[in-house]
Amino acid sequence: MLKIKPQNPKGVRDYLPAENAKREYIMGIIRKHFELYGFQSIYNPVFERLETLQGKYGDEGDKLLFKILNSGEYLDEKGLEIIENKPIQYGKLTQEISSKGLRYDHTVPLARFVAQHQNDLTFPFKRYVIGPVWRADRPQKGRYQEFFQCDADIVGSKGLVGDVEMITLIDNVFSELNLKIEIKINNRKIYNGICESIGIEEGEITPVSTILDKWDKIGEEKVVEELSKLIGEEKTSKLIAILSIKNVSELSAIENVELNEGIRELEYIFKYSRSQNLKFDLRLLRGLDYYTGTVLEMVSTEMEYGSIGGGGRYDDLTELFGLRDMSGIGISFGLDRVYDVMTELNRFPSEENKKKILILNLTERAIDQYYSLLTEIRKAGKVVDLYPNQTKMDKQLTYADKAGYTHAILMGEDELANKQVQIKNLKERKQESVEFEKAVFKI
Amino acid sequence: MLKIKPQNPKGVRDYLPAENAKREYIMGIIRKHFELYGFQSIYNPVFERLETLQGKYGDEGDKLLFKILNSGEYLDEKGLEIIENKPIQYGKLTQEISSKGLRYDHTVPLARFVAQHQNDLTFPFKRYVIGPVWRADRPQKGRYQEFFQCDADIVGSKGLVGDVEMITLIDNVFSELNLKIEIKINNRKIYNGICESIGIEEGEITPVSTILDKWDKIGEEKVVEELSKLIGEEKTSKLIAILSIKNVSELSAIENVELNEGIRELEYIFKYSRSQNLKFDLRLLRGLDYYTGTVLEMVSTEMEYGSIGGGGRYDDLTELFGLRDMSGIGISFGLDRVYDVMTELNRFPSEENKKKILILNLTERAIDQYYSLLTEIRKAGKVVDLYPNQTKMDKQLTYADKAGYTHAILMGEDELANKQVQIKNLKERKQESVEFEKAVFKI
Repeated sequence: MLKIKPQNPKGVRDYLPAENAKREYIMGIIRKHFELYGFQSIYNPVFERLETLQGKYGDEGDKLLFKILNSGEYLDEKGLEIIENKPIQYGKLTQEISSKGLRYDHTVPLARFVAQHQNDLTFPFKRYVIGPVWRADRPQKGRYQEFFQCDADIVGSKGLVGDVEMITLIDNVFSELNLKIEIKINNRKIYNGICESIGIEEGEITPVSTILDKWDKIGEEKVVEELSKLIGEEKTSKLIAILSIKNVSELSAIENVELNEGIRELEYIFKYSRSQNLKFDLRLLRGLDYYTGTVLEMVSTEMEYGSIGGGGRYDDLTELFGLRDMSGIGISFGLDRVYDVMTELNRFPSEENKKKILILNLTERAIDQYYSLLTEIRKAGKVVDLYPNQTKMDKQLTYADKAGYTHAILMGEDELANKQVQIKNLKERKQESVEFEKAVFKI
Repeated sequence: MLKIKPQNPKGVRDYLPAENAKREYIMGIIRKHFELYGFQSIYNPVFERLETLQGKYGDEGDKLLFKILNSGEYLDEKGLEIIENKPIQYGKLTQEISSKGLRYDHTVPLARFVAQHQNDLTFPFKRYVIGPVWRADRPQKGRYQEFFQCDADIVGSKGLVGDVEMITLIDNVFSELNLKIEIKINNRKIYNGICESIGIEEGEITPVSTILDKWDKIGEEKVVEELSKLIGEEKTSKLIAILSIKNVSELSAIENVELNEGIRELEYIFKYSRSQNLKFDLRLLRGLDYYTGTVLEMVSTEMEYGSIGGGGRYDDLTELFGLRDMSGIGISFGLDRVYDVMTELNRFPSEENKKKILILNLTERAIDQYYSLLTEIRKAGKVVDLYPNQTKMDKQLTYADKAGYTHAILMGEDELANKQVQIKNLKERKQESVEFEKAVFKI
């Protein structure tokens, strides 16, 4: 028989029980707070029409979309047809044979969803989604093509209450995860106002922000060099000087309506969130075009890692889908990145106290008793198993240890005769005899 | 600006909050029982190497696999290269441009997973997975290309304890879901024994079972006709006569080792599961080649719907991946099918008792109080929101009703002055004044 090598496609990986339990621990805490804040869970299919996805993430993003073949033999027939009608154009083939792709994030699907179901939703609409997204990045150690994002968005509201709520939500999540973080925060209006005040033209604002976003990567010197080419040395040195301001109040000296609006928003958020973790960072821009107000990023203060989540306010999320004036704010936790930090800092709670019981399968004559114990212990809400075969006790106990059981229940011929069971605590290596009738209560 | 029509790809759909909450209710109950039975959650990526998937589901299944393009420009360059090296062969193009596909079920990924990680797993290995699978069926009303399956498998154990456990697990799940069901059960050994006893050759057993599987669809007459062509009239009439037996004890008259082994297994399962829902069904075969013992299917006894889940025992799950003798048993609940039945029979619990509170945003001067209420109420574990804008009270109350809030907290200028809040029960249309300090306690 032909043997197939058991392996994942390059770039993605499995999660085994111990790892997956930790991932679910993080997701559980995030979900809990999302729900306490009134966000509701929705479900979007993993794939979208390519039309929905393309052109939203820049040229680089388009290349990273996983495209799905139009199904069945269609490809071959259609492919042949295209081939027969040479000359072939680059891109043409892909277009003809693929019309959908795996989602790249949760935001574009949300925009599509809101526009599509606008008549069935109540605005402000607060939704959360926890699930995988896919990017066809070159596979490399520690970076995967499939990763989980945990997103919450408030759509259809301009109020700053949303901004404040997002900050306290982030604080609550990381506080329960026992991770110390900093929330870097800025406001696009401040940045736009600064640009305006020093005469950077509107069309240059986005290219300038693209260069500034690379600050941490390429360093100040390179940034200055690239900026000078784009907007000249004078504006560059003015801009760099302003961007080194650490204090909001110093900015107020610049007279500009939009900038002052941005400062007002920032001050409101600092005041009402009462967050100890907020840190104003004038250099934080977050490249995405669609942000128009608050932008934020979450970073660990306990280890160097880069951002473990981010978000911001947008004015026209759904405009591309024909629905205007849908302001909102969204945040996203990177599950895999939070997981990495938690693992590195050893912040997962120990599993020790989770009781998991194995009933040893020692004699056919006690099989009735084993099954009643199973039923009764589960009714009491505890996790319990019966070893599936009657093998040697040693083998069963070894299995119990390896598989993470905390307790074993032993009922062999002697115990059966005495209407007793032995309850063995596998962690503390202690054992006690208990009347059969009281076993459920004792365990 | 170019407008994009907001719509899902054909064949898949979104779930809005109300629907999704019901889906999560079902998944929550299934998950709870999976865990009580000691199954552990793992995660497999949504796509597998095509080599892993192809040839496992028959020719029809292969056509229904969603294939993913090798990413980026690769397609176009490679596509061109293939084109230039004419003549083109059917199938060749697909092979060259796609090397992975979306999973078709959870079983083949499990087999791949177990073989791949065999050294990191403890056997018997009990895992569960709840998640979507994809099949490129022709889209039609009520049938989707993306649907959820909830699978539990015990791998690496021949013991019948597993069979019994699966039956009681199914009973527990549907009992908590408040659905009456029947578990149709049969054993492949009985079927094989019957075939052997009437002289059907080994090579004919699978084609015969494929015909028998269509019994409900095409009727007895057609089945007899097709069988006669394959194995002759005499064997056909013998087979049909035996298959009309409803009682296990009648079967025992047939002397055949394998058949008797099957009967013994079936009797063990009936005896120890103590299930009231088990129904022996000699015609149930479940086409899949890999079943070797128990086969089962879950159907509603309250409405006509077809199967809402199924499963069975297999001897060599992972053989194809080079790991032999991995016996096991698996069951799968079809989430979307269970959802349909629950909806039709109106079995979802009412949401009435889930408290969801909206703090009305009535005056800027009380904003401090609003934020403290938010914090305190959430600390008490309750779901609460602050209306994001200061609009008219009527508008906010209308929103509260539409968005499903059960209570509103009102604190306008008067209440602020008196250090009070009004708590409005939106379902019962009652309102009471409460001291501000006691609001959290009262709500």
